[in-house]
Amino acid sequence: MLNEAGRVIPEFIEGIGPLKPFKGVFAGFPEGKMKSPLVPYVTRDTEKLLPSLRDAILATGLKDGMTISFHHHLRNGDFVVAMVLDLIAEMGYRDMTLAPTALFPIHKSIIKHIESGVVKAIQGSVNGPVGKLASHGGFDVPVLLRSHGGRARAIEAGDLSIDVAFIAAPSADRYGNLNGSDGQSACGSLGYCVADAMFADKVVAITDHLVQYPLFPISIPQNYVDYVVKIDQIGDPSGIVSGTLKVTRDPLRLLIAENAAKVIEASGFIEDGFSLQTGAGGISLAVADYIRETMKERNIRGSFGSGGITAFFVQMLQEGLFETLLDVQSFDMEAVRSLRENPNHVEMSASFYANPHNKGCAVNQLDAVILGATQVDTNFNVNVNTESDGVLLHGIGGHMDTAAGANLTIITTPLLRGRLPMVVDDVLTVTSPGETIDVVVTERGIAVNPLRAELEITLKKAGLPVINIHDLKNEAYRISGKPEDPEFTDKVIGVVEYRDGTVVDVIREVKTC
Amino acid sequence: MLNEAGRVIPEFIEGIGPLKPFKGVFAGFPEGKMKSPLVPYVTRDTEKLLPSLRDAILATGLKDGMTISFHHHLRNGDFVVAMVLDLIAEMGYRDMTLAPTALFPIHKSIIKHIESGVVKAIQGSVNGPVGKLASHGGFDVPVLLRSHGGRARAIEAGDLSIDVAFIAAPSADRYGNLNGSDGQSACGSLGYCVADAMFADKVVAITDHLVQYPLFPISIPQNYVDYVVKIDQIGDPSGIVSGTLKVTRDPLRLLIAENAAKVIEASGFIEDGFSLQTGAGGISLAVADYIRETMKERNIRGSFGSGGITAFFVQMLQEGLFETLLDVQSFDMEAVRSLRENPNHVEMSASFYANPHNKGCAVNQLDAVILGATQVDTNFNVNVNTESDGVLLHGIGGHMDTAAGANLTIITTPLLRGRLPMVVDDVLTVTSPGETIDVVVTERGIAVNPLRAELEITLKKAGLPVINIHDLKNEAYRISGKPEDPEFTDKVIGVVEYRDGTVVDVIREVKTC
Repeated sequence: MLNEAGRVIPEFIEGIGPLKPFKGVFAGFPEGKMKSPLVPYVTRDTEKLLPSLRDAILATGLKDGMTISFHHHLRNGDFVVAMVLDLIAEMGYRDMTLAPTALFPIHKSIIKHIESGVVKAIQGSVNGPVGKLASHGGFDVPVLLRSHGGRARAIEAGDLSIDVAFIAAPSADRYGNLNGSDGQSACGSLGYCVADAMFADKVVAITDHLVQYPLFPISIPQNYVDYVVKIDQIGDPSGIVSGTLKVTRDPLRLLIAENAAKVIEASGFIEDGFSLQTGAGGISLAVADYIRETMKERNIRGSFGSGGITAFFVQMLQEGLFETLLDVQSFDMEAVRSLRENPNHVEMSASFYANPHNKGCAVNQLDAVILGATQVDTNFNVNVNTESDGVLLHGIGGHMDTAAGANLTIITTPLLRGRLPMVVDDVLTVTSPGETIDVVVTERGIAVNPLRAELEITLKKAGLPVINIHDLKNEAYRISGKPEDPEFTDKVIGVVEYRDGTVVDVIREVKTC
Repeated sequence: MLNEAGRVIPEFIEGIGPLKPFKGVFAGFPEGKMKSPLVPYVTRDTEKLLPSLRDAILATGLKDGMTISFHHHLRNGDFVVAMVLDLIAEMGYRDMTLAPTALFPIHKSIIKHIESGVVKAIQGSVNGPVGKLASHGGFDVPVLLRSHGGRARAIEAGDLSIDVAFIAAPSADRYGNLNGSDGQSACGSLGYCVADAMFADKVVAITDHLVQYPLFPISIPQNYVDYVVKIDQIGDPSGIVSGTLKVTRDPLRLLIAENAAKVIEASGFIEDGFSLQTGAGGISLAVADYIRETMKERNIRGSFGSGGITAFFVQMLQEGLFETLLDVQSFDMEAVRSLRENPNHVEMSASFYANPHNKGCAVNQLDAVILGATQVDTNFNVNVNTESDGVLLHGIGGHMDTAAGANLTIITTPLLRGRLPMVVDDVLTVTSPGETIDVVVTERGIAVNPLRAELEITLKKAGLPVINIHDLKNEAYRISGKPEDPEFTDKVIGVVEYRDGTVVDVIREVKTC
C-alpha cells in the first residue's frame, strides 16, 4: 500500500504484524488505553539486591521469546548489553526480542547471539555493525526502528511490551533508586530508559556503584525497580562520554553553519525566550557557536537548549544565554558534570522530550532545531537511516520528533560527500517526511520548503542565498552525475516507524553481487 | 462479617460496593493490572493555558457524577477546593465524588455543596468540620478513608478512578510543569498529588505564579497536565505553612518523649545509617530532640529522615545527622526553603513514600517511627480517626503505612487526656492493627507488644519502665473510671480502608439525644 509519504509499504510483515500506513505528521490520532502493568507487590523484608546477574534473571521469570530492553546512555562504552546476552545465551534462552534504545559498534559481539537464534528480532536503533548485518539479510524478522519519542510512545501504549528491562545504572542503592550522575561510569541523564522502568513487567538495575539508601538525586525511583545487581564495571568510561566535541574547522562546513545561523536570525527567533536544539556534530556546534555570538552581541537571554547536551550548551547556560538545559542524553564530561551540579540543567525522560502521545512534549516548545541527513530529496524528505549504498547504519534518534515539533527545522548538509550527492530526486529511505522540514542549508545555497512561502520571502529579503531545491539537486547531479541507486531485493529488513506508530517507510535488503 | 482485625464490617455498602475484609498486614496480595488512562494527544499548537477556571472545567468535559481530586499541600491556607466547588456548583454540576488527599477547617464552606447535592460522596481524609458532619449523618454515602500510601495504591490500581484532578500549583509554566517550591504560595513538596497527575483522565493546574517555560525544578511534569489556569491567589500563606513548630515544654509529655527516645536507643537502631520518621506534634519533636542529642554525642551519621518534614529535621540534615530527607509534605517555611535549596532534601511522591503495591516504598526502609493516637487498646490496635466521643475528626495520614513498614513503631500518648483514658479495652476505630505496633509509650510506663518478646527483654535489660498493656489500661481506668463508650446508630458513615484496599474497620453515626 502507498502511504502519505509516498512510499510503498507491505500491509503485513511476518513477526511484526499488520502495518499502519503513515497518514501525515499529526494525523496519527491515538486509540485505546495505555499499557497497564501488573500491580506489583513486595513485603517489608523483600531483598532487591541479588548476589548475581544470573540470580536476577532467574528472579524475573524470563522465558524464551520474551522482550528485553536496554538503554544506550553508556554508548560505545557499554558492557551491559553484551554481558546480559552472553549470560542468557549461556543459560539457554532463545528467540528473544531485543529492545535497545540504540546499539553501537561495541555491541558487535552480540551478532553471534543473533546468528545462533538467542536473539530473534530487534526493535530499536542498530547503529553500525548490527545495522549492516540487517541490511545483508541477517535477520528473519525486520528491525523495527523508532525515534526516541516514538519508542517512549510505543512502550506507554503497549505496542512495545517489555517483559524485562535491564538498566545499566552508574549509581544505585540497594532498594533500586538510580541515577547516572555519580560513580566511575557516570553518563549523566538516564532519560531514555524511564519508560522502560515504568512500563516493563520486571526491571533489573545493574550497577558498579552501590551507595547507602537513599541515593539522591533520583532519576529512576525505587518503586519501578525489582532487582539490583552489583558488578565490577558496567562500562568503559572512555567510550561512555566523548572528550570535548569540537566545532568544525572545515571552511565549507563553516559556511553551511554560518548560513544556518543566518536563517535562524533572519526568521526572527533570536529574541528573549529563544530555544534551540542542535546535534553534537561539527556543523551543529558551529551553528551554535554563531548563534552564541549573536546572542551575546544582542544581549539575548534564551529559555532553553535541549536534546543531547554537549559542553557547548553547558557553556551557553553558564554564560546566561539559556536559562535552562533539558537533557535527555549527556554527550560529554562537561554535560555530566553540569547535570550533577547545576540545578538549571534538568534531566528529562524520552516521553517528556518527544513522545507525541502524551499531554505535551518538549519538542513542541522548540523554536529551532538543526539536524543532519544522509540524504534529502526534492520533496524535502530526509533520510538519516541508510547511507547512499542502501545500508542501514544509523538510528532515527530524535530527528523526526524535533522536526515535527520545532517551529523552524533546518537540515544542514554539504551538497556532496565525496562524489555522492546529498540532495537527490528521491531519498532511499524516508525518515522525516518533507512536510516537517522547513529549510535545507548547503554550501551552495539555502532551499526553503514551498509549504513555507513566507519564510522564503523573509530569507530572500535578508539577502540569504535562497535556491530552489531542484536547482540544488541539479547542481549536485551536474558536478558528480546522477547517483546510481543501489540494488535491493524484495525482502524487507527494516521498518521505519513514524513517531505516532504508523509506518513511514521500509528498508530492503541490499543486493550483493 | 468479621475481619482479621476482629472488627465486624458489612459485606456491601450502597454507593461503595462490596467490601474486602482485612486479612492481615501483608496478606492483601494485589490482583490485576494498574489503571490505564486513555492515551492522550496534543498537537504542536495545543494551548494549555486557558483564560479561566471555567474554561478549564469545560475543556475537561466534566460531567455530573464524576470524581474530582485535590491535594492538601496548601493545608489550612487552601483556596482551591472551595473555589472549584463554588464554580462547579454555579455551573450546575451535581453528584460529584470528591477525592481530596485531606480536608481542613478552611474547607468548612464546602458543607453547603454537600447539603445541596453538588457533592455526593467523599473519598479522602476529612479532618475537622466535614468529618463531624459525616459523624452526624450528613452523607448518604460513607466517607472512604485511606492512608497516604493506600490512596496512591487505590489511584494506581483504578480503585479510585479520578476523572479530573485539580492541582493547586505554587509554580507553573504554561505547558504544565509544576512545583511547590517557588511563588507567593510556596508549600514545598507536591508529593501527594503525583498519582493524581499520572492517572487522572484530565489534569488542571491552578497557579498564582506563572513562569517562563521550562519551569524547574519539576515536581509534576508537563506530560501529565492538560490545562493551566492562572488566578490571583491559590492560598493564604499563613495557613499554608506553620510557623516554627515547637518542642513540647509540658514535663509529662517530655517524660514520654524521653522514654520513647530511650526505647529507640535501647533497640540498637541508633547507629550509622539510622533512619527516622516523626510527626510534627510536640511530643514527636521532643523525641527527635533527644535522638538528636544522642546522635551528636555518639557522632552518628544517619541515612534519612522522612515523612512530613519540619524545621527540626532540616536542622538535623544541616548538622550532618541525616544524609538525606525524603519529603512528601513540607510543614513549615524552613522545610520549604530547604527543599528548594538543598539537593540532599529530596521530594518524594506518596507512592514512593508508602504505597504497599509498588516495587518498594520508603516506609519499608524506616528503622523507627514515632506516631500518635487518639486511642490504643490492649491488643495494640490504634485509633487515629475518631475521638473518644466517637466523632470522626482526623484522617489516617501515613499512620498505618509507617506502622507497617518501620522496624520499630512507637506510639506515644499520655495515659489520659483530661479525664479520658487513652489506653482502653477496645478502640472505637481500628486504624492501624495491633500487629504493626511494637511499643506504646506513656508517662506511666512502656508497653511492648507480646509479638515482640525479644524487644521486651531488651528494654527491660536497659532498665526502662516496661509495663503490661493491661496494667496500663487498668491504671487509666483506676484514675478516671472505665470510659463510657459513645452510642452509635447502625448507619455506617465512614469506611477505614487498609493500605492494601481491604477494610480494617467502619465508623458509625454518633447517636445524638
